[in-house]
Amino acid sequence: MIGHGFMGAAHSQGWRVAPRFFDLPLDPTMALLVGRDASAAAAAAERWGWQESADDWRAVIERDDIDLIDIVTPGDSHAEIAIAALAAGKHVLCEKPLANTVEEAVAMADAAATAAERGIAAMVGFTYRRVPAVTYARDLVAEGRLGEIRQVRAAYLQDWLSDAEAPLTWRLDKDRAGSGALGDIGAHAVDMAQFITGLSLESVSGVMETLVAERPRMASSVGLSGTASSERGPVTVDDLALFTGRFESGALGSFEASRFATGRKNALRIEIAGSLGALSFDLEAMNELQFFDATAPAELQGFTRIIVTEPGHPYTGSWWPAGHMLGYEHGFSHQVKDLVDAIAGGTQPTPSFADGLQVQRVLDAVERSSDSGSAWTPVGS
Amino acid sequence: MIGHGFMGAAHSQGWRVAPRFFDLPLDPTMALLVGRDASAAAAAAERWGWQESADDWRAVIERDDIDLIDIVTPGDSHAEIAIAALAAGKHVLCEKPLANTVEEAVAMADAAATAAERGIAAMVGFTYRRVPAVTYARDLVAEGRLGEIRQVRAAYLQDWLSDAEAPLTWRLDKDRAGSGALGDIGAHAVDMAQFITGLSLESVSGVMETLVAERPRMASSVGLSGTASSERGPVTVDDLALFTGRFESGALGSFEASRFATGRKNALRIEIAGSLGALSFDLEAMNELQFFDATAPAELQGFTRIIVTEPGHPYTGSWWPAGHMLGYEHGFSHQVKDLVDAIAGGTQPTPSFADGLQVQRVLDAVERSSDSGSAWTPVGS
Amino acid sequence: MIGHGFMGAAHSQGWRVAPRFFDLPLDPTMALLVGRDASAAAAAAERWGWQESADDWRAVIERDDIDLIDIVTPGDSHAEIAIAALAAGKHVLCEKPLANTVEEAVAMADAAATAAERGIAAMVGFTYRRVPAVTYARDLVAEGRLGEIRQVRAAYLQDWLSDAEAPLTWRLDKDRAGSGALGDIGAHAVDMAQFITGLSLESVSGVMETLVAERPRMASSVGLSGTASSERGPVTVDDLALFTGRFESGALGSFEASRFATGRKNALRIEIAGSLGALSFDLEAMNELQFFDATAPAELQGFTRIIVTEPGHPYTGSWWPAGHMLGYEHGFSHQVKDLVDAIAGGTQPTPSFADGLQVQRVLDAVERSSDSGSAWTPVGS
Amino acid sequence: MIGHGFMGAAHSQGWRVAPRFFDLPLDPTMALLVGRDASAAAAAAERWGWQESADDWRAVIERDDIDLIDIVTPGDSHAEIAIAALAAGKHVLCEKPLANTVEEAVAMADAAATAAERGIAAMVGFTYRRVPAVTYARDLVAEGRLGEIRQVRAAYLQDWLSDAEAPLTWRLDKDRAGSGALGDIGAHAVDMAQFITGLSLESVSGVMETLVAERPRMASSVGLSGTASSERGPVTVDDLALFTGRFESGALGSFEASRFATGRKNALRIEIAGSLGALSFDLEAMNELQFFDATAPAELQGFTRIIVTEPGHPYTGSWWPAGHMLGYEHGFSHQVKDLVDAIAGGTQPTPSFADGLQVQRVLDAVERSSDSGSAWTPVGS
Repeated sequence: MIGHGFMGAAHSQGWRVAPRFFDLPLDPTMALLVGRDASAAAAAAERWGWQESADDWRAVIERDDIDLIDIVTPGDSHAEIAIAALAAGKHVLCEKPLANTVEEAVAMADAAATAAERGIAAMVGFTYRRVPAVTYARDLVAEGRLGEIRQVRAAYLQDWLSDAEAPLTWRLDKDRAGSGALGDIGAHAVDMAQFITGLSLESVSGVMETLVAERPRMASSVGLSGTASSERGPVTVDDLALFTGRFESGALGSFEASRFATGRKNALRIEIAGSLGALSFDLEAMNELQFFDATAPAELQGFTRIIVTEPGHPYTGSWWPAGHMLGYEHGFSHQVKDLVDAIAGGTQPTPSFADGLQVQRVLDAVERSSDSGSAWTPVGS
Repeated sequence: MIGHGFMGAAHSQGWRVAPRFFDLPLDPTMALLVGRDASAAAAAAERWGWQESADDWRAVIERDDIDLIDIVTPGDSHAEIAIAALAAGKHVLCEKPLANTVEEAVAMADAAATAAERGIAAMVGFTYRRVPAVTYARDLVAEGRLGEIRQVRAAYLQDWLSDAEAPLTWRLDKDRAGSGALGDIGAHAVDMAQFITGLSLESVSGVMETLVAERPRMASSVGLSGTASSERGPVTVDDLALFTGRFESGALGSFEASRFATGRKNALRIEIAGSLGALSFDLEAMNELQFFDATAPAELQGFTRIIVTEPGHPYTGSWWPAGHMLGYEHGFSHQVKDLVDAIAGGTQPTPSFADGLQVQRVLDAVERSSDSGSAWTPVGS
Repeated sequence: MIGHGFMGAAHSQGWRVAPRFFDLPLDPTMALLVGRDASAAAAAAERWGWQESADDWRAVIERDDIDLIDIVTPGDSHAEIAIAALAAGKHVLCEKPLANTVEEAVAMADAAATAAERGIAAMVGFTYRRVPAVTYARDLVAEGRLGEIRQVRAAYLQDWLSDAEAPLTWRLDKDRAGSGALGDIGAHAVDMAQFITGLSLESVSGVMETLVAERPRMASSVGLSGTASSERGPVTVDDLALFTGRFESGALGSFEASRFATGRKNALRIEIAGSLGALSFDLEAMNELQFFDATAPAELQGFTRIIVTEPGHPYTGSWWPAGHMLGYEHGFSHQVKDLVDAIAGGTQPTPSFADGLQVQRVLDAVERSSDSGSAWTPVGS
Repeated sequence: MIGHGFMGAAHSQGWRVAPRFFDLPLDPTMALLVGRDASAAAAAAERWGWQESADDWRAVIERDDIDLIDIVTPGDSHAEIAIAALAAGKHVLCEKPLANTVEEAVAMADAAATAAERGIAAMVGFTYRRVPAVTYARDLVAEGRLGEIRQVRAAYLQDWLSDAEAPLTWRLDKDRAGSGALGDIGAHAVDMAQFITGLSLESVSGVMETLVAERPRMASSVGLSGTASSERGPVTVDDLALFTGRFESGALGSFEASRFATGRKNALRIEIAGSLGALSFDLEAMNELQFFDATAPAELQGFTRIIVTEPGHPYTGSWWPAGHMLGYEHGFSHQVKDLVDAIAGGTQPTPSFADGLQVQRVLDAVERSSDSGSAWTPVGS
């Protein structure tokens, strides 16, 4: 694993736990953790249970005893590492966003396609696809239970910028973060909408906004946040993005990515309306899926709160009995399971780098639309 | 009262019930109901308890014993009737939308302004403002409990067109209905957002859509719906409208009016995020208001489900003890109360015709934006 | 109508509104309101729209132009008035509880049985049966959708005594109120459980409690509450009752009536579990019924939130379009409709005085059980 | 660890994960798993990551390199193993229920008290105490935010016996399971109520019931369930228990343990009402705590849905950022953390064996009350 931020903890938990609950066809070893700072990497490896640590990822990807590279670094280094790793014949799991630019993402998808011919797997980490309720939502759509999809409403809502005095973290600096709310959390909303519906967005119209344009510079950093100094500096990324998209089928979607949604800590919500039914999901109640069956007798219709923990639901049979809840990090174990299954089975895992690229293209189209007065903008291909 | 459709029943209930629960300074009499068809008008008058009926509204507005005209006809006749009634010195209550075009609405607002100088009252019926939870939401914003408003999310969701075989009612015919989802229900979302926040929309970007463009022609009409024939005809109004708006303060809002929101019968939802707090309301749980206080200790923060039936809440003290629910039509009694209070007090009621005009201008700007590829479009004035 | 407290307002609204929304076979006239104090009765009659007022109910029940007596006085006068009215050949609607003692209730049920032979109708006002969601719950059970009923959980929760300094109102005085939480609100929980399930309770075990035994005496009375004086007096009724009951079928029920349920203003909740399904209802969301269908595929099972406002649901088709909410007082219109239908049709309305008596017997058995250390006590018959 | 059923998986996850997220003062090693069947134990050890396996627990507790014994066997063996382990100077973590009889539990509590004098720790596994929302509920009560506790409503609802044809598993056989719904899940409701309120139950009145008395014998066993044969046999444990309890303070509680609560898979619910506030929790939404503050202004009062994932909430700061959900098994990591902290700090962990014994005494009193017609029965001491 390369990198050891918050995502490093989550990915480590996935590798640690998946083999204990799922019958994996291969036996993954948590071999080595890489970080720029050798001592920090060693501490993280010790904390999270990796056998070794190192500070030079280039050397690591050449090692014969390493089969898979898990990339959890910031987005600006994804392309370089992933392309090199694939070239070295390593399977790659790359945390989202695939890259900070479409150009990088194209190069990565190309590298993945080439590697695939040699049986090398590449996967991008849109982990929320593997929340059982989300996977099950996809299944219900695929079974036709919603009929023709008409409308999608997706929003990823956080509120850590509601306070105008919240300090300038690196995530608010375009040079380092690449993008703001749109790229960080809007990406999840786009991927989830496309994943569940099985439809791609073809064009968009949107607006990106920086609601609070100046904030106190940070005196020191603690976790995702930090303490403020008296000096102020500019916020150079969007903190709110609103856009509308048209899917290939003609269905319309409304999307929102907000860091100003006061009171919503991590609410990734999606509602999908079809000719025969509807679905509603909120990550704040992540074990539940609301399903409306428009084919039931009118008097009995309503949204059914399905608690997605039954043995027959995706992934859940391997965990606990029905009614026992799963949490945030279980998706990382599901990701490991599916990736290991694909590698052992000689198939390509999903979401592929091409899928990750397509999401980047959507976000890029939103940005271009916003720059041109919200004009409808085709998603490139 | 002129007209006797669904809104006639609701307005009649308002006039019938308000004096029984509120101490009104005047004693309204349900004098006369007007309809084009004399016998249908007579039947409605009998059913709803109006003393007389008539079929010529022009004669009625000249009668000395009539002080107030309540207009519940389709939108295309609002302007003519209201302007004539105001000219005849009658107070006017006009159901929303104020008119089918901005031009008509301008003329009505002008007439109301002129009449106001003579002490004549004019009010437009955005009744949802008078759901106690909505009025209370406005109060909380006005008290500063949300701080600076940052973001609004408003949607009016219905699903009576989800079924592609639902027939072509007059509401789907532009010539008769004037507009579709945007004008019918989007108007409520716009008015509510502006009412609660106290902010006006200044520009918009939007898209209007007709998701199902052809439907069976109607063989016969029953209530809001009807039975289908085998012939098909075109839907000439929008059935889905999505738009983004910028308020005068710089805050952003996302808006949706949908008749395709499968499973949502009459869900007018609004969420408002401010620097100090947030609110959430859904007409499907109309006695409740969710309030988030961002100034509370972090560990105690959360959305509080306020059941808006306390004696100290707007309007509710005149009805039942705390915890006893109100329904849809109570807003019509509140409207009567506020209108009668204004007339007796010699003040102008709200929402005024000017308020109604401003909502029309917003909808018009959305339509123009949609016609020009969702380009940002200023709200006229 | 005899009496003019809070229930008088609710019953008046029922008589006023029902004929405007339902096609009644008879045309009820709000003829006369009786109260002990002539001027207070006159004021209430004026306020609520009764044509006359009077202060001697005995004279009124002899009048030939009065066909029906609606009794909304305190429980200690129900028996005397109802028996006299029935003897005088008047139809009777009597607010719950039927009486303050089983003995009185027996006499009333006997009088009603005798009167029924002459075609006179008698009905007791358990209005919550006529909340559409509750009536629909009964229908679902009657259709067999829950299979064999196994378990019932019913609670009526209020909190107006949570504050130990809330003053001693007449409702806390056994001599005047007859009983406390059990008789006032527990009666509703018992009636609703028996109504929905169609099963009678046969034996009970319970405890009645007075959690705060002394409270400030009241200096003055305002509405249901009042202001406190510095002197204290004893609470002589229960403020919390908990009991278990066995239905005739062997099913078990748990019941609670509490005036100490902090935060619950008027929460009458019931949950019913059967071999094929389950139901859940809460008066705080009175337009909703939660239904669980255990015969659905396991992965799709969950509680469905049915919004009981469809045209095909009980009563709702006569009001507003689907999705438009009803409130507390609509049940009183439904009661009027059903009573008038029964009278016109020559049938006996439900709930009958015998039904009211049976509820009294259950409450009496709870009281006797509580007095004997919660021993199981048969419900008399 | 001794035993390797469902609880073995959960405890293993606790030992595996806790050191990766919490800074533990000691470094626990997953040394050895014991099971009666050597090959099954070896397979479980391999699966869950224990270094060794064994089939003789008596030998294991004598090993010098073992410091702590984690007992996850069925209840009938707890006493023997725990007492021997404590005598051998090992710290003990024993899954609930402490024992199948009060006598055994007394012996265990005595052994723990003796061991404590030598610095040996003993803890019983009521893991739900360590759901962050539950721990936080306890904190709020301890801070006085609820004032004087008046009333508790606790229910543990499952539905795996709703189907009358569900087969006879060992859990329905008194000889093997010791008890039914009361002992298995009612124990959790009792512990949680006492834990959060800080109050002990002093007397109870209850009824235990077997709603379906005969079921198909099991042909084969799979997980918690199995397949049915055509032969039938008796259910010898309760499948529903309802009881009322009085706390030492005079507060009353109602309790329910049901395996017939159709539609509720694992709903451990508790509601607590006090003079200043109230709390509500449901394990089906385990990251949430509903809090009502009766000291807030009346118009702002309501239940606040606190998502218990803030850094300042119990345990949660060591996991993920605010708004990222935890699941069922996280309580097992919290249990490990608190146990290891106690051992390292030389203090006794809670819940102690004495706490476990007290819960057994409550359950025993309920059983005795049920046997004597629900008469009030003191909880022994």
